[in-house]
Amino acid sequence: MAGNLFGKLYRLSSFGESHGAAVGGVIDGCPAGIALSVEGIQQELNRRRPGQSDVSTPRYEADEVEILSGLFEGRTTGMPIAFIVWNKNQNSKDYTDLKELYRPSHADYSWQQKYGIRDYRGGGRSSAREHIARVVGGAVAKQILAGYGIGIYAYTSQVGGICLPCSYREIDIEKRETNIVRCPDEETAKRMIGLIREVKEAGDSVGGVVSCLIRGVMPGLGEPVFDRFQARLAQAVMSINATKGFEYGTGFSAAGMRGSEHNDPFVIRDGQVRTETNRSGGIQGGVTNGEDIYFRVAFKPVATIMREQETVNHRGEEITFEAQGRHDPCVVPRAVPVVEAMAAMVVLDMLLESRTVR
Amino acid sequence: MAGNLFGKLYRLSSFGESHGAAVGGVIDGCPAGIALSVEGIQQELNRRRPGQSDVSTPRYEADEVEILSGLFEGRTTGMPIAFIVWNKNQNSKDYTDLKELYRPSHADYSWQQKYGIRDYRGGGRSSAREHIARVVGGAVAKQILAGYGIGIYAYTSQVGGICLPCSYREIDIEKRETNIVRCPDEETAKRMIGLIREVKEAGDSVGGVVSCLIRGVMPGLGEPVFDRFQARLAQAVMSINATKGFEYGTGFSAAGMRGSEHNDPFVIRDGQVRTETNRSGGIQGGVTNGEDIYFRVAFKPVATIMREQETVNHRGEEITFEAQGRHDPCVVPRAVPVVEAMAAMVVLDMLLESRTVR
Amino acid sequence: MAGNLFGKLYRLSSFGESHGAAVGGVIDGCPAGIALSVEGIQQELNRRRPGQSDVSTPRYEADEVEILSGLFEGRTTGMPIAFIVWNKNQNSKDYTDLKELYRPSHADYSWQQKYGIRDYRGGGRSSAREHIARVVGGAVAKQILAGYGIGIYAYTSQVGGICLPCSYREIDIEKRETNIVRCPDEETAKRMIGLIREVKEAGDSVGGVVSCLIRGVMPGLGEPVFDRFQARLAQAVMSINATKGFEYGTGFSAAGMRGSEHNDPFVIRDGQVRTETNRSGGIQGGVTNGEDIYFRVAFKPVATIMREQETVNHRGEEITFEAQGRHDPCVVPRAVPVVEAMAAMVVLDMLLESRTVR
Amino acid sequence: MAGNLFGKLYRLSSFGESHGAAVGGVIDGCPAGIALSVEGIQQELNRRRPGQSDVSTPRYEADEVEILSGLFEGRTTGMPIAFIVWNKNQNSKDYTDLKELYRPSHADYSWQQKYGIRDYRGGGRSSAREHIARVVGGAVAKQILAGYGIGIYAYTSQVGGICLPCSYREIDIEKRETNIVRCPDEETAKRMIGLIREVKEAGDSVGGVVSCLIRGVMPGLGEPVFDRFQARLAQAVMSINATKGFEYGTGFSAAGMRGSEHNDPFVIRDGQVRTETNRSGGIQGGVTNGEDIYFRVAFKPVATIMREQETVNHRGEEITFEAQGRHDPCVVPRAVPVVEAMAAMVVLDMLLESRTVR
Repeated sequence: MAGNLFGKLYRLSSFGESHGAAVGGVIDGCPAGIALSVEGIQQELNRRRPGQSDVSTPRYEADEVEILSGLFEGRTTGMPIAFIVWNKNQNSKDYTDLKELYRPSHADYSWQQKYGIRDYRGGGRSSAREHIARVVGGAVAKQILAGYGIGIYAYTSQVGGICLPCSYREIDIEKRETNIVRCPDEETAKRMIGLIREVKEAGDSVGGVVSCLIRGVMPGLGEPVFDRFQARLAQAVMSINATKGFEYGTGFSAAGMRGSEHNDPFVIRDGQVRTETNRSGGIQGGVTNGEDIYFRVAFKPVATIMREQETVNHRGEEITFEAQGRHDPCVVPRAVPVVEAMAAMVVLDMLLESRTVR
Repeated sequence: MAGNLFGKLYRLSSFGESHGAAVGGVIDGCPAGIALSVEGIQQELNRRRPGQSDVSTPRYEADEVEILSGLFEGRTTGMPIAFIVWNKNQNSKDYTDLKELYRPSHADYSWQQKYGIRDYRGGGRSSAREHIARVVGGAVAKQILAGYGIGIYAYTSQVGGICLPCSYREIDIEKRETNIVRCPDEETAKRMIGLIREVKEAGDSVGGVVSCLIRGVMPGLGEPVFDRFQARLAQAVMSINATKGFEYGTGFSAAGMRGSEHNDPFVIRDGQVRTETNRSGGIQGGVTNGEDIYFRVAFKPVATIMREQETVNHRGEEITFEAQGRHDPCVVPRAVPVVEAMAAMVVLDMLLESRTVR
Repeated sequence: MAGNLFGKLYRLSSFGESHGAAVGGVIDGCPAGIALSVEGIQQELNRRRPGQSDVSTPRYEADEVEILSGLFEGRTTGMPIAFIVWNKNQNSKDYTDLKELYRPSHADYSWQQKYGIRDYRGGGRSSAREHIARVVGGAVAKQILAGYGIGIYAYTSQVGGICLPCSYREIDIEKRETNIVRCPDEETAKRMIGLIREVKEAGDSVGGVVSCLIRGVMPGLGEPVFDRFQARLAQAVMSINATKGFEYGTGFSAAGMRGSEHNDPFVIRDGQVRTETNRSGGIQGGVTNGEDIYFRVAFKPVATIMREQETVNHRGEEITFEAQGRHDPCVVPRAVPVVEAMAAMVVLDMLLESRTVR
Repeated sequence: MAGNLFGKLYRLSSFGESHGAAVGGVIDGCPAGIALSVEGIQQELNRRRPGQSDVSTPRYEADEVEILSGLFEGRTTGMPIAFIVWNKNQNSKDYTDLKELYRPSHADYSWQQKYGIRDYRGGGRSSAREHIARVVGGAVAKQILAGYGIGIYAYTSQVGGICLPCSYREIDIEKRETNIVRCPDEETAKRMIGLIREVKEAGDSVGGVVSCLIRGVMPGLGEPVFDRFQARLAQAVMSINATKGFEYGTGFSAAGMRGSEHNDPFVIRDGQVRTETNRSGGIQGGVTNGEDIYFRVAFKPVATIMREQETVNHRGEEITFEAQGRHDPCVVPRAVPVVEAMAAMVVLDMLLESRTVR
């Protein structure tokens, strides 16, 4: 049961390898009659595309999206929206030296065991280049959600040991795109950029955390008991390359707390039932309650480093190996739009699901 | 698209409310010809049942499972396995005082918004009593997995501020059931028990962490790109009541690390490709690599506390409220078998899925 | 991927064997807030239950339904509706003579090959007793659909060589339940009853056709291109035991027609767009158009006959065999409510699906 | 829940409109390590492509398939196989006269009601041009099935009143591609061709029947109770444009038969359990029994005819209308490879599913 299909009602079927002809996807279940901006989709891809700054990989790809179906006179028709991004700058470099070795902490070994065959060029489909389809799927969802007043805002909140020292309420979320690491605090951003450059210089890589805020979600999204809102969100973001952890609301810190300090009292604000605090992160009993949703996603340091490493090849020989090629020293800045995209698809999916409940 | 169905090939359809006639489920997709021990299933339920110790709720339920179909002469037939646990000790107490108020940090408000109706007695289906179906589904899965040499071992690793100070490799996993909090370290267990009693005494509750180890999984489970092993595991455990976070392998600590310290070198051990370290947590590229899988799940403190709280009722009036009834001061000890159950169903599901790949 | 789950949004999970403890199911995705009549559900079961007349099996079963969850104060809550019918009159007769032989044109051989094990008592789960779950699932759907003005009316239109000689427009559909074969034409019904009695007397069985009319469906149901309304209907009814064919609208007779005689001209009637004729059977381009939907389902003669037959046993020996037990000489009269039930679930499912399109 | 996804384990996600940029699809779940012939896929498309003879539409399309992913060095990798066929010969003719009218017995009215918008150019996605994706999905499946010795052979068995007068056992199935109507009997084929030319000359269209034989299927495919083999087959073929009926084995004729003449006695042949006759059509209890599978699909006459017809426009005015453009007078010859394709995908899907049962 291959896993290249995401979502239940708003469904993305994704395809493509890093060094194949193209990557792309098919969106099925997009509501009909929506005016879509292709330019808006391209802008999301631009936030993810390689070569956008000196803290990302130098591989240059324009990553231009082409829509093949499902739009008529600028509007969605309810038919599948197919889209494609041609791979243009596959490096002519010979990848055959990767053909028979297992790069440490990459997908090489486990995928070879699973499938008995793998496209080793640039990681094939295990490459983060696959995220392009997610970003497009999410960009379409975001445009639809905007019509409901729902906004999704991810940002970099940690790179290595450098953490953004404030909660989502204290930052100016609009500033998250004003610097190349996508951290809404300028001072912290500068330190993060410095760290990434230092790590890159050392031929090493570094991990980080993406935080995400979702505003404007109505109460009632989420499908207990197994498809609780946070459960679907967790699956969505934990399917992104290099993720290691997910938490929402108070997250792991809740483990150390008492009920009397964790509970969110209900109050009436502007005639609405609201919670005074929001330790629940906008989700109670697996269903949204109308408050801000916020969550955090941990990313490991990129496995490709420019240093000699021990490993093993197909013949079972222990060898040493040093990576070549073009890689990100830290995935977090380019992962920000991917986290947003996955969250957007979950919200839209669950919004559509909620229509079938009454 | 109601969310009471779990899994893709090994599927659990769950039903039942806290104060209805019964809770139960139907397992579809259980492989045929497996000898099942109903007693083994009951043992798992006994680990979860209420009233088992003074750190859990005093509501007493025998929680005896009855199998209605799918077994013939002690073996599975490939037909659906329906099971039922009758609710016997619903408290005769009148729950009508809960009828019209929203308990803080419970599902009351969000579910009412979603469904327009709710069975308020004991939380209805939002009650953790629903976990019974999960435990049975997981118990069947565990028996099947045992035939493949796969073992699943969850344990309590944190209660409030008290943490088990060692990694999964350093503990004696067999000792996790020797005390009422299910912590494999006796000394830590005693402190945890002390804390829970103290919290209970104070009419309060406390959060914690369940850690889980999965041994013996073959390489090749997990379905990239969206159904990565960790993504499905994340959804599974984040659908359990009161969970706030999930991490596997190095988890959130990976965010602070460098690639050169995080990568797991491949080596040959006993003629097998293995990793020297296991920061990957047994999963690479979303697919198991044959190493131990380990992950952690954060639980918030139980929302029901024996103290006066501010809240709101159906008529939009702000009121004060003090909970009555029988509740756990800390859910973690009884959540241990539930985490195991969810993990077991994921592993079996993905094992079945892996058969369709080649 | 076991097939005991029906539907996409309104989903029935079915369980139970002919001679096990019980048959039943779980409905997930039933809209919340609907007043359900349990008595109405029971009435549908009564239409299907064995022993209701001399043209059906003499096995007597009250087939009383018990609802275990999902209802609160008479209304659906959006939670799973579990239901159960206990098997009470399993014949104490020893079925061990069936244990090792393959009854001709039954599921014995193919299921044994598939599963390697089978509950041979009364056919186990291959028995039509499994239809009980369908009838309950359909009865709930019918009550909901009635609220939209949608009615579903199946009837017997052929038994052996005796055919109802008129179209759905010419019959009085309300009369279909006035006789024991469920044929709305009294004269034809009498002849059908005579034939069944004759066939029964001869220890033989006979096939037939169930026709079905669906009135009041709004335009817009059906999900092209693969989930066209007729495609989902076809799957639904072809999953009923003993079915051999499905056709809707003009059906197979369309193969012999010209476009100029088959097309349905659009007209304006009462200010609505309507078709003058209805050869399309209420479905165009896979989507309902607001006209009556009608279709026909062919049933083979029951495989169990009271005559000596040639067959083979588990040891590969050719043997002769004569059936014992209690069986229907013609399944069609009792299949009528099953066809209705399957159609009802399809209509409700697609009605819910249609809400996600715009 | 849009319906552009077919299959459960071998899944086809289809996209594209008649007059958009392209049609194509993504196959997910194709087993890894299979050598695929792209030329073989193209040959299947050639059997369906327009303009192939004077009994099909004169619109010329080369329909060349391009594979974008999922193949590496000629073998499948287990990754999604995306494919595309560019639309090259969209007629520059102005379709705006179709913009506001509902063509009789087409999808125009029902789709407009459903989606509120439609791409009216050449029928948009309701055009049979969408079948291209099915043919490619089926061609890949057929190549895989061939490796198991499974062959799928559809042919024209009826055009208008002209029927092939013999059963599948009496024809030389290899001759079905020797004439332009794809009827394996030369004499009947000539008469069918004559009839189609006559009908075309008269500006009319005619219906027909496609029969299909599946050889070499092992016992054990099919997933009772809802996913019986015939149920999935029925859905598959009833989702093809213009189909009106499905029957397998004895089909509707079984309704007129007695059990004593319909049952298939089991015998031992070449040491195997076989049935002496095959009225069951290779399926018993919803599961294949190793005998030949055969079924028939009825097609209505094409709705587009070159004659004046009454209809209605968007403004609710009754008008007369005469179709322009390029159309098939009978879809059956070009539907033959589409029926094969759908059957192939069902067989492969259920073969993969059967691996999860034990």
